[in-house]
Amino acid sequence: MPQTLQSFIAGRWIGSEAATPLHSALTNAVIYHTHADRIDFDEAIMHARKTGIPALMQLNFQQRAARLKALALYLLNRKEELYAISHQTGATRADSWVDIEGGTGTLFAYASMGSRELPSSNVLHEGPAMALGKNGGFAGTHILVPRGGLAVHINAFNFPIWGLLEKFAPSFLAAMPCIAKPASATSYLTEALVRMMHESGLLPAGALQLVIGSTGDLLDRLGGSDVVTFTGSADTAAKLRANRNLIANSVPFTAEADSLNCAILAPDVTPDDAEFDLFVKEVAREMTGKAGQKCTAIRRIMVPDHMVDAVGTRLRERLAKVSVGDPSVEGVRMGALASRDQQRDVAERVEQLARGNEVLFSARDGFAPLGEGVSEGAFFAPTLLLCRDGQRNEAVHDVEAFGPVSTIISYHGIDEALALAARGKGSLVSTLVTKEPAIAAYAVPVAAASHGRVLVLDREAAVDSTGHGSPLPQLKHGGPGRAGGGEELGGIRAVRHFLQRAALQGSPTMLAAVTGEYVRGAAVQESEVHPFRKHFEDLAIGDSLLTHRRTVSEADIVNFGGVSGDYFYMHFDEVAARDTQFGQRIAHGYFVLSAAAGLFVSPAPGPVLANYGLDNLRFVAPVVIGDTIRARLTCKRKVDRNRTDDKGVGQGVVAWDVQVTNQRDELVASYDILTLVMKRSMMSA
Amino acid sequence: MPQTLQSFIAGRWIGSEAATPLHSALTNAVIYHTHADRIDFDEAIMHARKTGIPALMQLNFQQRAARLKALALYLLNRKEELYAISHQTGATRADSWVDIEGGTGTLFAYASMGSRELPSSNVLHEGPAMALGKNGGFAGTHILVPRGGLAVHINAFNFPIWGLLEKFAPSFLAAMPCIAKPASATSYLTEALVRMMHESGLLPAGALQLVIGSTGDLLDRLGGSDVVTFTGSADTAAKLRANRNLIANSVPFTAEADSLNCAILAPDVTPDDAEFDLFVKEVAREMTGKAGQKCTAIRRIMVPDHMVDAVGTRLRERLAKVSVGDPSVEGVRMGALASRDQQRDVAERVEQLARGNEVLFSARDGFAPLGEGVSEGAFFAPTLLLCRDGQRNEAVHDVEAFGPVSTIISYHGIDEALALAARGKGSLVSTLVTKEPAIAAYAVPVAAASHGRVLVLDREAAVDSTGHGSPLPQLKHGGPGRAGGGEELGGIRAVRHFLQRAALQGSPTMLAAVTGEYVRGAAVQESEVHPFRKHFEDLAIGDSLLTHRRTVSEADIVNFGGVSGDYFYMHFDEVAARDTQFGQRIAHGYFVLSAAAGLFVSPAPGPVLANYGLDNLRFVAPVVIGDTIRARLTCKRKVDRNRTDDKGVGQGVVAWDVQVTNQRDELVASYDILTLVMKRSMMSA
Repeated sequence: MPQTLQSFIAGRWIGSEAATPLHSALTNAVIYHTHADRIDFDEAIMHARKTGIPALMQLNFQQRAARLKALALYLLNRKEELYAISHQTGATRADSWVDIEGGTGTLFAYASMGSRELPSSNVLHEGPAMALGKNGGFAGTHILVPRGGLAVHINAFNFPIWGLLEKFAPSFLAAMPCIAKPASATSYLTEALVRMMHESGLLPAGALQLVIGSTGDLLDRLGGSDVVTFTGSADTAAKLRANRNLIANSVPFTAEADSLNCAILAPDVTPDDAEFDLFVKEVAREMTGKAGQKCTAIRRIMVPDHMVDAVGTRLRERLAKVSVGDPSVEGVRMGALASRDQQRDVAERVEQLARGNEVLFSARDGFAPLGEGVSEGAFFAPTLLLCRDGQRNEAVHDVEAFGPVSTIISYHGIDEALALAARGKGSLVSTLVTKEPAIAAYAVPVAAASHGRVLVLDREAAVDSTGHGSPLPQLKHGGPGRAGGGEELGGIRAVRHFLQRAALQGSPTMLAAVTGEYVRGAAVQESEVHPFRKHFEDLAIGDSLLTHRRTVSEADIVNFGGVSGDYFYMHFDEVAARDTQFGQRIAHGYFVLSAAAGLFVSPAPGPVLANYGLDNLRFVAPVVIGDTIRARLTCKRKVDRNRTDDKGVGQGVVAWDVQVTNQRDELVASYDILTLVMKRSMMSA
Repeated sequence: MPQTLQSFIAGRWIGSEAATPLHSALTNAVIYHTHADRIDFDEAIMHARKTGIPALMQLNFQQRAARLKALALYLLNRKEELYAISHQTGATRADSWVDIEGGTGTLFAYASMGSRELPSSNVLHEGPAMALGKNGGFAGTHILVPRGGLAVHINAFNFPIWGLLEKFAPSFLAAMPCIAKPASATSYLTEALVRMMHESGLLPAGALQLVIGSTGDLLDRLGGSDVVTFTGSADTAAKLRANRNLIANSVPFTAEADSLNCAILAPDVTPDDAEFDLFVKEVAREMTGKAGQKCTAIRRIMVPDHMVDAVGTRLRERLAKVSVGDPSVEGVRMGALASRDQQRDVAERVEQLARGNEVLFSARDGFAPLGEGVSEGAFFAPTLLLCRDGQRNEAVHDVEAFGPVSTIISYHGIDEALALAARGKGSLVSTLVTKEPAIAAYAVPVAAASHGRVLVLDREAAVDSTGHGSPLPQLKHGGPGRAGGGEELGGIRAVRHFLQRAALQGSPTMLAAVTGEYVRGAAVQESEVHPFRKHFEDLAIGDSLLTHRRTVSEADIVNFGGVSGDYFYMHFDEVAARDTQFGQRIAHGYFVLSAAAGLFVSPAPGPVLANYGLDNLRFVAPVVIGDTIRARLTCKRKVDRNRTDDKGVGQGVVAWDVQVTNQRDELVASYDILTLVMKRSMMSA
């Protein structure tokens, strides 16, 4: 008997009574039911607020990043269980790889970005702080903090695993408990994933709830600190976005809707170019991968008018070779649509598209998928159309057949191609295939105004290209207009979207206290102990050293020139230097930097292991012969990434603010140095 | 006869037939009419699209920034005309200063930030680019481009000038033509401003249109590339946000709504502290400035229960001294509300607030504003209430009297204060008055979750503080939830909100062509001419020099130690260095940096005027005795800020990518250097 899926609400799995049947995409057999048991959404929300938020806030950004990594490893170890279930969705192994390992890969990526870019606290300082007055007592900056709300993630049927994980990762880093609602058709795979995630023991209580079936009155119960994300059709996005409660409370609503994405073959490419093959291959792959059920799939194939026949012929040849059927059958390259409903829907839309356009390839008559017992499966043959007048035909820019269906649109000149691309009214992604950097430089900024991502494909890029259809964790996913206007992924940006930004004003001392970072002008602590001799745990923000002084002599310039080989006229040519803005020779900037290091160095072995970098160096004023400089070194920022060196000794990252001043206390050079500092204690994992 | 105001649509001033009368806030006399003439919004939109966008795109970011500066100077020269008109709105000179010079100051600030932070093109590279594969052929980054749409700015009545200019400045930088719709009550002042802006001759055609009266079907005609901003009440914001067309096309809608902002007197402050006086003064100023008609005004005064009487007494004393009347009368400190409608509205809300709360100060009985002929003016006396149970009273967190009205709410312990603050369901700003950095560090991140801005006020900050109520161009303005969920201002962030972000993928060569910045791995050009000997105009992105080599010897380390004074054990102590991860002495990082400069320097006077800074330095691998290093220097980024030196010689900013490698072609150091480079031609302004 088919299993009844369960929701995970307020720490309990609920659902015993069967409701809607869910079918295998391959055989149409009923394989699961959703549950009929009512979900108390008030309880779910309260659980997220009262249990989830405190549990997440017990960890800091770095610790949550570490959890994501552990979770990714755990899921990767159990991936074959997921592959087995994924088979029923009609996906090939390659399709499932995108969903399953694309999902865990996204967790890994966010774990890694979080560890590199986020603090070991729950306040993200988005500096630099800036002075807001002439007396140094008042400054301003920005902080990002957890919103104190929950995230509702509503997902599409096509990527039951990646779809959840790509939203879960950044919202989890942002300390938002999440209520996930997968599309019912493939919710059995999401349910299996969520069970695993809980079985890992790595999730704080309340961090992840799952809704199988309808969201009921969930959205009507949210407040201004919550957020909603939606992936799916533009129509549903519009409906949800208009929810009165979401609007009344300004609940951020991010939509990522499928759109009429295009690929453009630029006019410079000829059939003899490698780029021509790349174009054909990319289009064919996007048409057939996941049976064309990707929000990012290429729906419009823009081809210069004189190339239409050549492209059409080559695409037909490729599509004819694609075997469709049960992916467990050897040689099958394309699986089924997710359901019979989808199959009907795609067929209807192909009919709409076929009106006024030519059908170049379609195997519907006598089409029989490979495999046993699959005659009732949701299969659909690849279908290629041709539109010879993209200016007049509306459907081709508006009707999306969410399957292995695409239309060649002929164009004349790159400007027409770009105008046609924009007729999609906002898309997730477009691909431009060209050999010419000048064409890319001209076309991409135009295309970028209506696309969330633009891929420029040439033979150089092809070696490593991740392809038109693949959103990457590092890059923005989401497009304007019809594509929903949202932004997902995009590196740490995605985490910021789930945080609340606030401007912060006050004295430098107060700003330092709030941000956890030294702000110039804030109170500092000076002690007998050199800050470089303190271990990571003992260092406090604001620990500071004002060095002894050093008078810069002509001999310094001469010697520095000798060591560096830098005999620039400003340092060595009294005649030419007289004509500069300074009217005289000045010391090398890098001498000032090096002499400052000489002033604050603590030579014997100590906790400071390495100075691995330097940021924001500005030579603010010249140092001339006879000037006397000194440096102030202040502990600016500490990040505990929970790392050890190869001997197991714990270490943390410490950034130091350096100000080099002259005998008139004028700032001459300003920068941050980055160091690794040893911990006193051995690591506890 | 009162003048009929005009709209500026498609390059023409239209409106001759009088419609709604507009009254003087001081005398209630009719001083203007809106116009009855119908506006063709389709024409307005087409004008913005067909004329405005091309005209704006003929300029680049830097040139638009220069226009903003010129416009600010022009308006500042004519400010007295605006002050004269502003008087009729009921504003004091100080109130008008905020509106008028706050407005031009915002233009200056955006001109300056644009010049400092934006490129001299129309593609903003939001890097750094990152490798997306192992073979170096594929990389990714982000660009921001003008959206190719228009901005509709709908504004409130309280700041007829600043309200327009603070939105116009960032959207103008982003190349968006703007259709401005001021609130009718004070639209005469905005009309005067827009006339001046056009008279300046500085605005590109179509860059600014003005709507007096209703926006009709304007919002129903917008598309996905357009944006709408709204400032005003939360109710109207919700109504506009639900517009079907805006939702269907994912038109970004930014709302900034007035909210129940609060000031919190922290438990550590006693009546003997300077901070106590600061608190009372700030609250009184916010209550009476602009007669309390500020979205940011303090509506809730959170006071520890044992301090309520002391604060109440001091506030009453201050409010009693505030003379209300025609601001042209000597000694008048507070003017009128904007209209009789507002006067009625505020009176009603005070009644709502008074239910269940005490009225501590109110001069309504026998209240007579100072001045002649003002008995019908829209004056309202300062009103102070007291709520002793902020947990139970709903009205105090919900009902906003948009006038000189505020309520003291007693609290017990900082956690209760923060909980009460959050009861406002999202506010623009809160002020925390405390002496203790630890209290700020605890309270601000909590408050930040429900506030767009947090001001920490103490005696140190007070010297320069710009005050609770003043949004600054550098800092975010806008709060979550009831405050509308929007972000305005906030430095260049605000410009980014009006641009479209797109992810960009391709070969490094293509990324460089599109972004206008060298990306590692892209093709470079090497020529006989040293890049440092080329003038700004002659330098191309990718111009590159691979230097000769230099073998690093023990003598170099010894000499560098001698010159710098840096005798760190890693360089000088063979015994201790053996125990490090490198197992031997290594060269100073700053020696590598200095030697690289010696390798690529071109010593004679030339176009490169100064190396003024360095960014993103990372010491990637150690350099040991016997290693042979060389450097690749590549022109990375050029910004033409249209500047000259003091002799009138033009110059531009050039950033150079530097990679220092060793004999195995391994990267040892990586950084950008920043230079000023002379132009060949003399400047044409």
